[in-house]
Amino acid sequence: MLAAFVIANGALAMGSKVTMFFTFWGLNALRRPEDAAVNKGIIDRMFGWMMPRGSRALSLSKLHMGGFGTRLMRHVMQQKGVASLESLMQSAIAGGAEIVACQMSMDVMGIRAEELIDGVSSGGVAAYLAAAEKSDTNLFV
Amino acid sequence: MLAAFVIANGALAMGSKVTMFFTFWGLNALRRPEDAAVNKGIIDRMFGWMMPRGSRALSLSKLHMGGFGTRLMRHVMQQKGVASLESLMQSAIAGGAEIVACQMSMDVMGIRAEELIDGVSSGGVAAYLAAAEKSDTNLFV
Amino acid sequence: MLAAFVIANGALAMGSKVTMFFTFWGLNALRRPEDAAVNKGIIDRMFGWMMPRGSRALSLSKLHMGGFGTRLMRHVMQQKGVASLESLMQSAIAGGAEIVACQMSMDVMGIRAEELIDGVSSGGVAAYLAAAEKSDTNLFV
Repeated sequence: MLAAFVIANGALAMGSKVTMFFTFWGLNALRRPEDAAVNKGIIDRMFGWMMPRGSRALSLSKLHMGGFGTRLMRHVMQQKGVASLESLMQSAIAGGAEIVACQMSMDVMGIRAEELIDGVSSGGVAAYLAAAEKSDTNLFV
Repeated sequence: MLAAFVIANGALAMGSKVTMFFTFWGLNALRRPEDAAVNKGIIDRMFGWMMPRGSRALSLSKLHMGGFGTRLMRHVMQQKGVASLESLMQSAIAGGAEIVACQMSMDVMGIRAEELIDGVSSGGVAAYLAAAEKSDTNLFV
Repeated sequence: MLAAFVIANGALAMGSKVTMFFTFWGLNALRRPEDAAVNKGIIDRMFGWMMPRGSRALSLSKLHMGGFGTRLMRHVMQQKGVASLESLMQSAIAGGAEIVACQMSMDVMGIRAEELIDGVSSGGVAAYLAAAEKSDTNLFV
């Protein structure tokens, strides 16, 4: 997620148009941290509980070590003046990046639009492919 | 694997030509579930045992939880009318996707052509790069 | 890492220009195995200890099994005449691949240029994006 948003901000700074498509587990980064008042079935609710809610709840892909490694990484980044994941996300959205949540993943995981942060639209694989076809650089992160 | 085949089917539906190159662990999705009568050395046989055989044996990349999460995800997808990995693979092959197994990975892991599902050819990195060069969109999933 | 360097060597063999950008955990593959005499703070030193130092210290992404699987894979690759990760890296560098270490990742993880193997330069996201824009094929591995 860090790599994706560093690249997105870099591309925006260089004047490129940026579209980011979030699918499966990637959706979790876009969830609001607070509980939303939505009606859900028990299985959708279970998925919601089991998955990290928002960027602050994400773990490092390695060296998480029960939370210690992730907190250490956040501390070190702050100390060295590197933008946090939250700042990177905010500046990408403010800079005009189009953030698209995969509609099929939302359906499967039972995540509603009102549970996602502001500035996020939703779309399907056709929307992704249309954006990919027009772009110069396209990554699956 | 789900993401790869959702994108592949989407691209086919939009009239694009699709080539999918399977390397290393990705090969496991292409294995036939049943035992094939092939002669193998002990190490090749061990690799065969240790790795998932076919798409039904694959685990979710997160929330597998000893099989519970993976079964739950399959159940939810079925209930919500989302195609299973197996249907996605079948419709991609039926739709004309070229499915290429990495020859070097097959050699290293001791997997023979007759152990792979129908509709799969094999090729090397040169075949991959030739297809990548001609394509508009190219992802490493 | 194997996939990345197999593709890099294939592309060089086909006469393409290759640039590889190493970020976050990917940096570990570029570390010298031996201790470098650098002055570091305690947190930078800790990161250095916790992360694999050089390609020989990397684990298989699956089937590592306490080191057994990784050693077995190296053994099988050697026996079957497949180049090791170290040979692939050497031949990519010798063949003219530009190997770029992400400067921000180096800063965050406290890794100095003199701790990386020969033939590595460093650069930021702008350098990556400039190379990506000019290239025909661009992967996030």
